[in-house]
Amino acid sequence: MKILLVGALGTVGRAVAAELGSRHEIVVAGRKGADLPLDLADPASLRAAFQRLGTVDAIVSAAGQVGWAPLLELTDEQWRFSLAHKLMGQVNLALIGQAHLRDGGSITLTSGVLNHDPVAYGAAASLANGGIEGFVRAASVELPRGLRINAVSPGVLVESMEDLGAFFRGFQPVPGARVALGYARSVEGGESGKVYAVH
Amino acid sequence: MKILLVGALGTVGRAVAAELGSRHEIVVAGRKGADLPLDLADPASLRAAFQRLGTVDAIVSAAGQVGWAPLLELTDEQWRFSLAHKLMGQVNLALIGQAHLRDGGSITLTSGVLNHDPVAYGAAASLANGGIEGFVRAASVELPRGLRINAVSPGVLVESMEDLGAFFRGFQPVPGARVALGYARSVEGGESGKVYAVH
Ligand SMILES: NC(=O)c1ccc[n+]([C@@H]2O[C@H](COP(=O)([O-])OP(=O)(O)OC[C@H]3O[C@@H](n4cnc5c(N)ncnc54)[C@H](OP(=O)(O)O)[C@@H]3O)[C@@H](O)[C@H]2O)c1
Ligand SMILES: NC(=O)c1ccc[n+]([C@@H]2O[C@H](COP(=O)([O-])OP(=O)(O)OC[C@H]3O[C@@H](n4cnc5c(N)ncnc54)[C@H](OP(=O)(O)O)[C@@H]3O)[C@@H](O)[C@H]2O)c1
Repeated sequence: MKILLVGALGTVGRAVAAELGSRHEIVVAGRKGADLPLDLADPASLRAAFQRLGTVDAIVSAAGQVGWAPLLELTDEQWRFSLAHKLMGQVNLALIGQAHLRDGGSITLTSGVLNHDPVAYGAAASLANGGIEGFVRAASVELPRGLRINAVSPGVLVESMEDLGAFFRGFQPVPGARVALGYARSVEGGESGKVYAVH
Repeated sequence: MKILLVGALGTVGRAVAAELGSRHEIVVAGRKGADLPLDLADPASLRAAFQRLGTVDAIVSAAGQVGWAPLLELTDEQWRFSLAHKLMGQVNLALIGQAHLRDGGSITLTSGVLNHDPVAYGAAASLANGGIEGFVRAASVELPRGLRINAVSPGVLVESMEDLGAFFRGFQPVPGARVALGYARSVEGGESGKVYAVH
């Protein structure tokens, strides 16, 4: 398969690339240093990237930034940023990208453990994760041509504990390689409308 | 208790007002014909309304519009509208309103069955509902002063079947009076971070 992987150079993305790259061709996409430059928050850049890319078998997002602050200190700009990046950025990737998938191809987005297991500072992440999961279930009943769509909900990665550990006390960190299996389930399985929680 | 009820003149809101109004003072809020005019999508109008209102014991939202169209026909404007109204409108009600609650007061937002059980045309609703539920769980761990926050997820109301029935074939309609119990659980109970599904 030819798989577009947005965020392939990130912490989750590198683990996904290692898992899927052993069996499939990965197109490395992101804002900086990627083979295919694109910005999830800029629909025009998504359209341009798909024009260059042509048809793929799978679209995977391992990206999507959010604002991170105490609940009552999240600014309007941080809320706007979180909706534009993690939430609508991934939704637009799916809606624009679906036209460039072969029949029966798949879309895999990323949510996260904070939807169901919140932490302080993470309200924008929890909201975006919940929105992505609702969207994926809904899109699965309407996508044409046998296209599938799922989300992976990673727990906090072992590889992210140095940066994020202080926010995730008591959470069991998950190795990136195990999180990557969720993406393989989605891309190489047959299900749609699922959330693969790897917590 | 003095309860601010946004959307008190709507289908869900009338049922909530009937249930809670028998025991409590209801402040009827909405855009048109309400005692307290406010627009969820306009944070300035929320701030002005709370200035007029003073302190309340509970804030309840039984409002929040979304765009409704086939997945691949939802316009950018419909997505923006859905995020501004049902999603961030309710989030802003919570974030602005919390400062006007007495210690230990509560906030109750509305999601809906479409988060987990999607239908065609409902992707923006599913996304908004998922976002609200993630937000409520997250906010519950950070709100100060013993404030509580929950969501009610109504199934399709019996009272809405004439309008919505064609979209909800096979769904068991729920009487508004039963949905209203979810709001009473939230306002008059002691839990926080819960989603009361009345499906
Ligand atoms: N790490 C964890 O423990 C964890 C746990 C649960 C969920 N998640 C979720 O997993 C996703 C990835 O997290 P991560 O920790 O791997 O982040 P990361 O290490 O910062 O990597 C993110 C990758 O995505 C790219 N990216 C970011 N914004 C982009 C945009 N607007 N358009 C295109 N590409 C973009 C980045 O490259 P450029 O900056 O060059 O664009 C980078 O390659 C996020 O949604 C995150 O919330 C992570
Ligand atoms: N009805 C159902 O079967 C059902 C099922 C599941 C979930 N829900 C959810 O429940 C909520 C209420 O639905 P409903 O069927 O009761 O709708 P509705 O009959 O249209 O009533 C909505 C009420 O909210 C007010 N409202 C709407 N937009 C507002 C805004 N921007 N600012 C302030 N007030 C606003 C309306 O008054 P004004 O127009 O005058 O402002 C009206 O009183 C929605 O979030 C809906 O998605 C409904």
